[in-house]
Amino acid sequence: QCNLTGWWKNELGSKMHVTKVDSQGSFSGEYYTAVSSAKKPIQPSPLVGSQHLDKDGQCTFGFTVNWKKFSDSTAVFVGQCFTGDDGDEVLKTSWLLREKVDSLPSDWKATR
Amino acid sequence: QCNLTGWWKNELGSKMHVTKVDSQGSFSGEYYTAVSSAKKPIQPSPLVGSQHLDKDGQCTFGFTVNWKKFSDSTAVFVGQCFTGDDGDEVLKTSWLLREKVDSLPSDWKATR
Amino acid sequence: QCNLTGWWKNELGSKMHVTKVDSQGSFSGEYYTAVSSAKKPIQPSPLVGSQHLDKDGQCTFGFTVNWKKFSDSTAVFVGQCFTGDDGDEVLKTSWLLREKVDSLPSDWKATR
Amino acid sequence: QCNLTGWWKNELGSKMHVTKVDSQGSFSGEYYTAVSSAKKPIQPSPLVGSQHLDKDGQCTFGFTVNWKKFSDSTAVFVGQCFTGDDGDEVLKTSWLLREKVDSLPSDWKATR
Repeated sequence: QCNLTGWWKNELGSKMHVTKVDSQGSFSGEYYTAVSSAKKPIQPSPLVGSQHLDKDGQCTFGFTVNWKKFSDSTAVFVGQCFTGDDGDEVLKTSWLLREKVDSLPSDWKATR
Repeated sequence: QCNLTGWWKNELGSKMHVTKVDSQGSFSGEYYTAVSSAKKPIQPSPLVGSQHLDKDGQCTFGFTVNWKKFSDSTAVFVGQCFTGDDGDEVLKTSWLLREKVDSLPSDWKATR
Repeated sequence: QCNLTGWWKNELGSKMHVTKVDSQGSFSGEYYTAVSSAKKPIQPSPLVGSQHLDKDGQCTFGFTVNWKKFSDSTAVFVGQCFTGDDGDEVLKTSWLLREKVDSLPSDWKATR
Repeated sequence: QCNLTGWWKNELGSKMHVTKVDSQGSFSGEYYTAVSSAKKPIQPSPLVGSQHLDKDGQCTFGFTVNWKKFSDSTAVFVGQCFTGDDGDEVLKTSWLLREKVDSLPSDWKATR
């Protein structure tokens, strides 16, 4: 079964800690990013999200990280849980990072 | 000031209702999508997210929509609030939709 | 029928000129961007691409713009031709912009 | 120095062959995809693109693959060449795949 509670680490060295998934699939936690394009020092950042609770352990999920402690930006991640050949759970995710821009004409370049 | 509480509508006819933003910027609500690639009928779907609380009304934000009532998919949106020339608040967002796939070799096509 | 030959303009004010589509669907032209995140002044930039030649006028296409005249970046666009209610041809596209980064650890932030 | 001429293979098992890069950086070749969401059997597909010709071997590039031999879709790739610690050249790319849709209201789901 797929439950996001616990610690996860990605290939860039970023870590996340999901503290608890409730009965509706909502969860919260902290994201410890290893990479940043902000000028201020990185700090652990709060995340909130939601996951499906499928019995087959292959659920999709998404979450938002609010970088307010050191940046104006917000990131979202969406992905799916898989169980590898060795029995380990693997999360495959895609993400978007929104930087704050001054005005609408700069909107085109705000998301990476 | 940018506060996401209330009703929003996009150019595809989808609507969202953000019920309350707490003092940390976390919020929840319901998303009423006008479009779907699922086979079951569309239903209002829960969303959870987080926004910055900048005083300048140009905050970035993100949220997750869990389509569990009619689909295995999850969507994430990330964006920024702007105040248009006419004083109206406009949200500019980008999104990713994750569909559930059977196994890791299909992961490449899961996100649009 | 959908043929990309000619001038096109987008909602940001950028224009492109496709000079000729050959019998295989390959084409070239110039892109006149209205927006840039580079420091040097914008210049018209060469594009090369390929389109389907479907008879129904709804073909998909893609092209690459090489910004070498004022930047290290490269952009790709992919889209589809549609005929609007008023008979006008409309191109709907998505794009990725790759900026040059110093080394592999910065690869995560290179594309928007 | 970064020159795309030759054979490249990605982690999904897809291969591409770039036949020649001209003095402007334009190139063509064939893409042998290992994965597909089309119904017809996969076939080698023509690609056209463009690369920067920076002396430092870290150039950015982009190309379009026209899947016309077995599908209505078009893909674009954008990326950068890196030299790894072992001296091997590595390409890091992002891509978009455009599927043909019937009409404008389906445009939202056409790109993954």
